[in-house]
Amino acid sequence: MIDSYISKDDKKFLKLALNLARRNVGLTGKNPSVGCVITLKDIIIGRGNTQLGGRPHAEIMAMKQASDHPLLKEERKIEDINIYITLEPCAHETTSPSCAKEIVNFGANRVIYLATDPDNRTNGKGKSIMEKAGIECIETRIYERENSDILKGYLKQKKTGFPYITLKIGSSINGKIATKNGESKWITNSLCRKRVQLLRSENDAILIGKNSIFVDNPRLNLRDQFESIENKQIFILDTNFELSGFENLSIFDNVGKDKVHIITSKKLKDKVRKDRKFFREVNIEQANKEQQFLNMQEILKIVSRMGVNRLLVEGGARVWTSFLKIGLFDEIVMFTGNKIINDSATSCFNDFLPLDARLGDFPNLTLTSLLRWKDNIEAKWIANS
Amino acid sequence: MIDSYISKDDKKFLKLALNLARRNVGLTGKNPSVGCVITLKDIIIGRGNTQLGGRPHAEIMAMKQASDHPLLKEERKIEDINIYITLEPCAHETTSPSCAKEIVNFGANRVIYLATDPDNRTNGKGKSIMEKAGIECIETRIYERENSDILKGYLKQKKTGFPYITLKIGSSINGKIATKNGESKWITNSLCRKRVQLLRSENDAILIGKNSIFVDNPRLNLRDQFESIENKQIFILDTNFELSGFENLSIFDNVGKDKVHIITSKKLKDKVRKDRKFFREVNIEQANKEQQFLNMQEILKIVSRMGVNRLLVEGGARVWTSFLKIGLFDEIVMFTGNKIINDSATSCFNDFLPLDARLGDFPNLTLTSLLRWKDNIEAKWIANS
Repeated sequence: MIDSYISKDDKKFLKLALNLARRNVGLTGKNPSVGCVITLKDIIIGRGNTQLGGRPHAEIMAMKQASDHPLLKEERKIEDINIYITLEPCAHETTSPSCAKEIVNFGANRVIYLATDPDNRTNGKGKSIMEKAGIECIETRIYERENSDILKGYLKQKKTGFPYITLKIGSSINGKIATKNGESKWITNSLCRKRVQLLRSENDAILIGKNSIFVDNPRLNLRDQFESIENKQIFILDTNFELSGFENLSIFDNVGKDKVHIITSKKLKDKVRKDRKFFREVNIEQANKEQQFLNMQEILKIVSRMGVNRLLVEGGARVWTSFLKIGLFDEIVMFTGNKIINDSATSCFNDFLPLDARLGDFPNLTLTSLLRWKDNIEAKWIANS
Repeated sequence: MIDSYISKDDKKFLKLALNLARRNVGLTGKNPSVGCVITLKDIIIGRGNTQLGGRPHAEIMAMKQASDHPLLKEERKIEDINIYITLEPCAHETTSPSCAKEIVNFGANRVIYLATDPDNRTNGKGKSIMEKAGIECIETRIYERENSDILKGYLKQKKTGFPYITLKIGSSINGKIATKNGESKWITNSLCRKRVQLLRSENDAILIGKNSIFVDNPRLNLRDQFESIENKQIFILDTNFELSGFENLSIFDNVGKDKVHIITSKKLKDKVRKDRKFFREVNIEQANKEQQFLNMQEILKIVSRMGVNRLLVEGGARVWTSFLKIGLFDEIVMFTGNKIINDSATSCFNDFLPLDARLGDFPNLTLTSLLRWKDNIEAKWIANS
């Protein structure tokens, strides 16, 4: 349990496990993206990470590779085998034995991992299984920051029942996201737009308001270097079901109707029933309407139910402002282009506190990353909880 | 004239001259801040920079120091002496001989400098004087970017008759400079406020609108590490002379009435005459009023007449927007605090182009510097001319 147990070599192997975990962030469904390294006398004999969709787990992949390694076949001395994982191995059995049991079967001297799995079915039970079999288990807090960034969606979902929420905004120097006539192509440059592709790839789903769909008719697919990645689920907030009848949206061609979820008011049952025929393949979800908006908690529950741990909110102002109002967002990735635009153009946020709010009432964020892309800026702001 | 004449040692001495010039930026009045290094057999025997207020010039300071150097007294071989200057030595004589003549008297093998002086009285004449006396003169473009940053106010004033104009803005993440009730203390953090002190020190004068004076009652003085620097001239735009009668402004206590210039409409001659008694020591300047604003070109002429080469525009939104409208600003230093504020709060800019302007009509700026101050950002944007 104490970091002094961790040698320089141990750190190196844990870092490699982290890098393996990083690869499939946003691609493992409800499961966390985990990395695993197995060594024999400090020689790497197995590497693995959680596979697309969430299975097999990282440990299974690494053990499979290690089993075929000539060194292991030559001399299998359990006291020489160490296993490095970014998360406690699971203790629950579904169709196959748990990772903890598989590790016991495989055999190891020590298992070193970076975080306890908060899943009720594991949460220390993975450790117990291994310790009972005589394996030394060490949980260390090194690389906590890096690992939390990889696991943040999974951890938040397990802890709160809500996904980790990133608001992605592209604005002018003075915080405008479109001109008065709705033009927004392009306020930020092509490097920022590539970064948006990366953000999409690292999230499980995209949430967007119906206004943005109407004004921008965005594709919302993964393109360029990210083309081989499966497109994400799209959730469109459409309180009054105004999208009904619009068959020719870019999103349908580029992402596919089956991946699109329209969330609308529960009050519109008849309209939805009628339109279900029209939108044969589009998913329709319903939430309660409060004043003019859909209940945000209900929306996040719907999104969570679809296995979404990391949610990217792509706009527009009204949707971002709803998240500010309920204080349920986790970070803002702000891309700032190099233009100044009229003040009467569209702002990134509307009012979200009473008009007589004092300066001290407005939220302070923490700047965790600042990048420059030619004449544009990417800043990551974390909400202080 | 060709950079291959420049040795590694030459570059070193030119860099030192640049560093000397950097020290008095904003403190040399209408004169440029220049640095000078004199070597004998590549040993430094004299250093100088333009003194506070603009005189003596850098070359005179360096020659004075060199004259007392024991090495020079020992053996004064002109062929061993090199002089490095950030600007061509002046050719004009006022109360004292020109620097070019003084250099001829001092004696040198080579004079290497970084820029021609655009002043009509010099502009190559300094070089001629030295060349006629048998001194090799080399103008090099190395360090052009660094030197232009030091000389930018002087160069722009000579070229256009207007000062180099920096808009300094402190805003929230979404571009707001104050809450609806006028609160702005503090949107940015103490590190940014220290940087503002540095900006003030590097400029010859501060320009501000009367609204900002009324709302913030700012001190506008140099504080903390900059306390020993003489306060700058302050120009207040007050079209309708509404400041008349306000004796108790912080600015009067902290900067002094004699440094304050109120610029008001020419139409208010009688009011101004009456109030001159009231504002005994405050300077009153007058410009033509066009629609609701003072003519900006006239204002800049008034400012230039007072010897201002570098002008810092500290706000507010209306004043910054005026500069956007006429396109006469050179750079924007934008400090971004870590708050998000209601959209109906005060924006940094108002509308400055017609309401139907297209995205392509709005200006693109060039990002030349991006700094992080804890949770705040400082970005320097240069206007593309």
